Amino acid sequence: MFKRVDRLAIELPISNNPDPNGASAVQELLGGKYGEMSTLNNYMFQSFNFRGRSKLRPFYDIVASITAEEFGHVELVANTINLMLEGSTSPGAPDSTPLRIAKDARMTSHFIESAQTALPYDSMGRPWNGSYVFSSGNLILDLLHNFFLECGARTHKMRVYEMTDNNTAREMTGYLLVRGGVHILAYAKALEIATGVDVTKLIPIPSLDNKAFETTRKWEAMGEQRRLYTFSDKDYQQIAQIWKGVHPDGGKLEAYAGLPGYGGPIPELPDLPEEFAPGISPEDFLQIAERLKRNAGL
Amino acid sequence: MFKRVDRLAIELPISNNPDPNGASAVQELLGGKYGEMSTLNNYMFQSFNFRGRSKLRPFYDIVASITAEEFGHVELVANTINLMLEGSTSPGAPDSTPLRIAKDARMTSHFIESAQTALPYDSMGRPWNGSYVFSSGNLILDLLHNFFLECGARTHKMRVYEMTDNNTAREMTGYLLVRGGVHILAYAKALEIATGVDVTKLIPIPSLDNKAFETTRKWEAMGEQRRLYTFSDKDYQQIAQIWKGVHPDGGKLEAYAGLPGYGGPIPELPDLPEEFAPGISPEDFLQIAERLKRNAGL
Amino acid sequence: MFKRVDRLAIELPISNNPDPNGASAVQELLGGKYGEMSTLNNYMFQSFNFRGRSKLRPFYDIVASITAEEFGHVELVANTINLMLEGSTSPGAPDSTPLRIAKDARMTSHFIESAQTALPYDSMGRPWNGSYVFSSGNLILDLLHNFFLECGARTHKMRVYEMTDNNTAREMTGYLLVRGGVHILAYAKALEIATGVDVTKLIPIPSLDNKAFETTRKWEAMGEQRRLYTFSDKDYQQIAQIWKGVHPDGGKLEAYAGLPGYGGPIPELPDLPEEFAPGISPEDFLQIAERLKRNAGL
Amino acid sequence: MFKRVDRLAIELPISNNPDPNGASAVQELLGGKYGEMSTLNNYMFQSFNFRGRSKLRPFYDIVASITAEEFGHVELVANTINLMLEGSTSPGAPDSTPLRIAKDARMTSHFIESAQTALPYDSMGRPWNGSYVFSSGNLILDLLHNFFLECGARTHKMRVYEMTDNNTAREMTGYLLVRGGVHILAYAKALEIATGVDVTKLIPIPSLDNKAFETTRKWEAMGEQRRLYTFSDKDYQQIAQIWKGVHPDGGKLEAYAGLPGYGGPIPELPDLPEEFAPGISPEDFLQIAERLKRNAGL
Amino acid sequence: MFKRVDRLAIELPISNNPDPNGASAVQELLGGKYGEMSTLNNYMFQSFNFRGRSKLRPFYDIVASITAEEFGHVELVANTINLMLEGSTSPGAPDSTPLRIAKDARMTSHFIESAQTALPYDSMGRPWNGSYVFSSGNLILDLLHNFFLECGARTHKMRVYEMTDNNTAREMTGYLLVRGGVHILAYAKALEIATGVDVTKLIPIPSLDNKAFETTRKWEAMGEQRRLYTFSDKDYQQIAQIWKGVHPDGGKLEAYAGLPGYGGPIPELPDLPEEFAPGISPEDFLQIAERLKRNAGL
Amino acid sequence: MFKRVDRLAIELPISNNPDPNGASAVQELLGGKYGEMSTLNNYMFQSFNFRGRSKLRPFYDIVASITAEEFGHVELVANTINLMLEGSTSPGAPDSTPLRIAKDARMTSHFIESAQTALPYDSMGRPWNGSYVFSSGNLILDLLHNFFLECGARTHKMRVYEMTDNNTAREMTGYLLVRGGVHILAYAKALEIATGVDVTKLIPIPSLDNKAFETTRKWEAMGEQRRLYTFSDKDYQQIAQIWKGVHPDGGKLEAYAGLPGYGGPIPELPDLPEEFAPGISPEDFLQIAERLKRNAGL
Repeated sequence: MFKRVDRLAIELPISNNPDPNGASAVQELLGGKYGEMSTLNNYMFQSFNFRGRSKLRPFYDIVASITAEEFGHVELVANTINLMLEGSTSPGAPDSTPLRIAKDARMTSHFIESAQTALPYDSMGRPWNGSYVFSSGNLILDLLHNFFLECGARTHKMRVYEMTDNNTAREMTGYLLVRGGVHILAYAKALEIATGVDVTKLIPIPSLDNKAFETTRKWEAMGEQRRLYTFSDKDYQQIAQIWKGVHPDGGKLEAYAGLPGYGGPIPELPDLPEEFAPGISPEDFLQIAERLKRNAGL
Repeated sequence: MFKRVDRLAIELPISNNPDPNGASAVQELLGGKYGEMSTLNNYMFQSFNFRGRSKLRPFYDIVASITAEEFGHVELVANTINLMLEGSTSPGAPDSTPLRIAKDARMTSHFIESAQTALPYDSMGRPWNGSYVFSSGNLILDLLHNFFLECGARTHKMRVYEMTDNNTAREMTGYLLVRGGVHILAYAKALEIATGVDVTKLIPIPSLDNKAFETTRKWEAMGEQRRLYTFSDKDYQQIAQIWKGVHPDGGKLEAYAGLPGYGGPIPELPDLPEEFAPGISPEDFLQIAERLKRNAGL
Repeated sequence: MFKRVDRLAIELPISNNPDPNGASAVQELLGGKYGEMSTLNNYMFQSFNFRGRSKLRPFYDIVASITAEEFGHVELVANTINLMLEGSTSPGAPDSTPLRIAKDARMTSHFIESAQTALPYDSMGRPWNGSYVFSSGNLILDLLHNFFLECGARTHKMRVYEMTDNNTAREMTGYLLVRGGVHILAYAKALEIATGVDVTKLIPIPSLDNKAFETTRKWEAMGEQRRLYTFSDKDYQQIAQIWKGVHPDGGKLEAYAGLPGYGGPIPELPDLPEEFAPGISPEDFLQIAERLKRNAGL
Repeated sequence: MFKRVDRLAIELPISNNPDPNGASAVQELLGGKYGEMSTLNNYMFQSFNFRGRSKLRPFYDIVASITAEEFGHVELVANTINLMLEGSTSPGAPDSTPLRIAKDARMTSHFIESAQTALPYDSMGRPWNGSYVFSSGNLILDLLHNFFLECGARTHKMRVYEMTDNNTAREMTGYLLVRGGVHILAYAKALEIATGVDVTKLIPIPSLDNKAFETTRKWEAMGEQRRLYTFSDKDYQQIAQIWKGVHPDGGKLEAYAGLPGYGGPIPELPDLPEEFAPGISPEDFLQIAERLKRNAGL
Repeated sequence: MFKRVDRLAIELPISNNPDPNGASAVQELLGGKYGEMSTLNNYMFQSFNFRGRSKLRPFYDIVASITAEEFGHVELVANTINLMLEGSTSPGAPDSTPLRIAKDARMTSHFIESAQTALPYDSMGRPWNGSYVFSSGNLILDLLHNFFLECGARTHKMRVYEMTDNNTAREMTGYLLVRGGVHILAYAKALEIATGVDVTKLIPIPSLDNKAFETTRKWEAMGEQRRLYTFSDKDYQQIAQIWKGVHPDGGKLEAYAGLPGYGGPIPELPDLPEEFAPGISPEDFLQIAERLKRNAGL
Repeated sequence: MFKRVDRLAIELPISNNPDPNGASAVQELLGGKYGEMSTLNNYMFQSFNFRGRSKLRPFYDIVASITAEEFGHVELVANTINLMLEGSTSPGAPDSTPLRIAKDARMTSHFIESAQTALPYDSMGRPWNGSYVFSSGNLILDLLHNFFLECGARTHKMRVYEMTDNNTAREMTGYLLVRGGVHILAYAKALEIATGVDVTKLIPIPSLDNKAFETTRKWEAMGEQRRLYTFSDKDYQQIAQIWKGVHPDGGKLEAYAGLPGYGGPIPELPDLPEEFAPGISPEDFLQIAERLKRNAGL
């Protein structure tokens, strides 16, 4: 089971300028084959389908707890897209063509299917789909897959980072490069313990250091590249059996129970009358308040 | 963000008989257009994309907290499939054709892609995909969608229930019929408060009462059809503003913070040598134990 | 625009025996790449997109009127599937597993997504999709496509005919072989008039004569292989400029305004309580009657 | 069966300016999940698959007759796209790059796959597919689906309206907002009669009145929001049992046998030599005329 | 089996200017329904699945040898896309947004999924898929399909030619128009021999002569429109039984064993540091050289 | 470019018994995400898109030459499927339902779309598609992908081996396990030389030795697990710089120019009148022979 916390993984800065095509590029990191929907669902299914859990608990705990972190990453990327789209259009009567910019934007779905918000699609509008999930049941093969998947995801993040200077996008991408780096190392160490092969020496793939990306630096300065969290109140603590030892950067790996200590508010998305969203007029709102009261038996 | 709990929504009975084609049918409830992957992702994206949250908090809380419950439902259906497949084959040397039954089974993916476990596909093997997500941003429309989606999901559950007498499948389906019924009512009440239209009178769709399904009864006797949980330690408590009043069955609606008090262990899936899963021999295991010790600096 | 007539292209015999896997095979003729959804939508889009209509009217009329006939073919195949599924299951309480046969049937969608009725899928459950439509705007190329498409469709019909001896399936397939043969010849003649090349000599592809299929014979005895209808009250009558001359079997080609003189009733599908379809109890029915009266102001 | 009429639902104005990206947006209303291909095929399959028709005839007649109207809507949207693309390019020798604008247009399919005409795709080029069809066989659930589907379709129309000021697009969209409004009300009333719940009070969703869209007004002034047609010569007349009473705007609901009295010519699409469409030269044309004469035995 | 030759079908000129949207259009000729992936895989599967080979050897040889030529065409189109993308971006630190142009380009996949190189997608980013393969086993039907497929492919090439004046694109397209013309004629002649119907008279479809495209002319001057190659050292020589006689342009058809005498070098793609491709630094390179030596036992 | 050789990679034994559902399982090894179409197309695109070839030639040669071998593997699996289907049905008049067994078979496509032969689909009938191709341009990442892909492919082969005892299937699978093992090692060694990390120690994944599969043994006895071929007359010989040293089994790695010395005839597929394939009657055949003569100018 899962419990939800109404908090974002980090605080996202508000975009200075709407960047709809940038938001479209960021969709790759959400619904692409190497996006967060993929990491989430791969690990989720692998944790459901894990064979021999009692004997291989530390490996299970790694996969199961990273699953939980990935939910937060899906949430973070989705909120980034939403903020990047903010301000793309202005209210106006339908006959004033208030959504005119959408016609030439790369992703019309943002404007027609949703009210300028995120969808489970990649940067070309192709829906995320279940064929992206790998869950063979062979532990070594699944770990190898995850190691590869995270390296692929890192590459895509690095490239999307280079496509837009939007500050929300960069803040999110920098943070996820650091956390994705943790997952790469976690799967590499798991592979290493499972096989004895020193896979961590392959890291980083691509070889460019995270430090080359400005928004990673504060997180690395904080040591976030060395921390793995259980994302659970009490469970999955055997991650510490794998997540132990020395980081390639020299620091000490630290496993923590629970969530990171930081985080940010979930951005408030304002009314967008030109999208009929949420489509609740002041009068409607009064009536709703009235009905809520009545429902509460007041 | 999300925190994970290493516990299943309910305790699942172990199947008496392997039921691979039954498991294939149950895939519809996991990866079908009206399966749990769909309810999960619809509400997850709607909660990310919610406009006007501060003014419409009770509605947001309903959508956001049900999202969290749905994760547990995805987990429950996946575990059910795994248990239904248990025992389908027996170990044997490759030349003894140990997977021979798979050739005639409906879903070869269970045997080739995974080690007799769940995948994000429907009962025909079609991958779940992001085009199943609806997130318009218009509150009334999204609630109407969710109400419809849950009624569709109920219909599919009722039909799959009738397709197999496997006790794991029935236990899961009975429970989800009850909890799905809660979600139907929650969206109906939300719609009613948002619009003043008494949508709850449409319930149940289809009109057959949950009581017609044996495995629903103990949950209804417990009152689970009247309880909505926040699935959060502290957040989403304004669900109680909507989830209040009287259930169509006459009892009182009750909103709870946190998770339900019950739950069950996550089933242990044994080794399946004929699937090379997890593929860790006793010798491997000893070496792994050794490496874990070394990693721990012992 | 289109007008609908509540009549089936031919009278369909009632199946003696339910044949769910046969119905699954027949789905190929409905939603397959060479099924009736494809012929319908190809000609529909080509007629919408026709360039130079005023100068090339007879060609336009051929494509436009065959579109209209294809609607009736989609309807006929769908009704066939429905009749083949009839009687697959018997009513019973959910706990008596009344849909148990569905678990091992080839197409679970017939039982879960619909109440044992047709869906826009092929025989493997793959949804029909718009990539099957060809509409290049080049007249010769579009006609060549249509000629090929109809030959492909003929081949699939011949093969499905050989897969089941269900009498409803055979009646439908025999009739459509005859009518499909008309369309093949129509496009061949259109190509011939457009280019001067005697394409009709390629017919039939495959070379087996329709007469080899028992249920074609009565239609051929009636001369239906020589008739083309406008499927319109007043329009598309220039089909007669192309559909003129001698049939390869020696008879005279005849173009008719309107629909064929024959036809059959649309089969009545009974209640299926085990599918909750239509899900209207006798009590509900009385209330509906009451509400209809009230609505009528009585 | 269906009969075709060579007339468009309304007269479409000729676009002043080509608007290829606008045409790409309008594709959503044709081949999108909530476009006219979806409404058409949903109702078509539901009418084929209707259980208990003889007892529930007014409901069947509603679904069956709206199906027929939807064909005309598919046709209308397709013709709109064609007119919006008109004039996008000019003829020229291939080496003069006459299709150069297509390279940067949103939908290259309009220029490569077709000769600047409509295709069964959505605004992102994703093909329409059969997974968009819902046909559960449960009457209430199917009606609820249709009510929701029409509200979703309305939302998409409203948003596309706001994306382009192209007059053809607006004329079509305004008309379809009015007619779609009729379908919403029809399904709402059907639901109401089937269940007794006053669903019509939910209307309109989104709450913005059709009158906010300039091109709806003349149709509403004519009363088209209050008329439902059988789109049949003789059948489906029991729509009048449901389509009776008072419109939310106060006027009287009127059911008509047949088609609306108005309509427009199907636009003539000129030669487009740079697309080789129709690709018939003046010399070819003379030869065709000659062959037609010969074929006619003259 | 297949043997590979490290040579390109023709020498490709280097593009003067990067043309990313042109490259996106050219993707249609690679991964589109009528692109080279389709011709390749259609003929490959038909050759695998050929029934009655010993009696129908000349037909088999035609299909089997054209398969081999198509591999080279896939390679040629892919290399064209790569050259068209060359120079789209310049190296720079990630924070200088070196991939900024990609955000507004039509095909973000070129920049995120690959390092500015070709992918098996069409011009809208839709992946090539196996439903594009037709392999009925009926010889006449398969030949008719191939004839149609090649005419469709020709049309798409002609249209893409008109979309960009990029010299690499034009050189490739001109050559493939000529070679595609050979395949059209080959299938037409095969059909003619199989049926006696003079299908070659339908050619060319569309009717515009290849000579209208500047870059075809040198190949036609060389006579490449009249030559068919076995693309094999020793096999498939019975193509000469079909590929014999007179070309519509009057020249003599010539069948050759082996590959054409011309060809070009495979373009060298330089480092693209902003894409981390190949991602091998000078230091890495030295180490690799060292390891290669060690591996060689030096 | 590619040259074709009319020879199969190995001689395939003729199946004793038709095994249509086994053939359906084997489809996974052809058109599945981890089937031969995937290995082929991944390496083909990576070889087209290779950056820095002149400096990294041995790596290019590995990828490019394995591409060529994979064509032969696609061919081998397709021919296996064809042989497994042989004898599934017997000729008979259409009214004798000669294809009746197809109705209950897992893959109706084998019988409707093709004449009991292979298609580019996986074991569930899902078409192979281009989203399965990975071509990032980063050398290490692409090699890591290929190493993982081959391990996934090995797992699927091992599982399919266990699903049927059909001797054709086993002969093919055994051989491909050996050759796939070569590719795994080749990519592992390439990774090792590129990074210095001893990835070969991870092998084999899954850990079960090839020797556990009877049909691998003769190939291993021949030493085929230690040989890599260029599959080219003259090119790609720098594979020897990587493919050098000692095999994990102790023998010496050997690189060869050209194809293996062994091979087998391509099976002849007989007439299948019940599928109308090839559909050439004895009379047709005489006429064809006549036309071939005439075409040859005899």
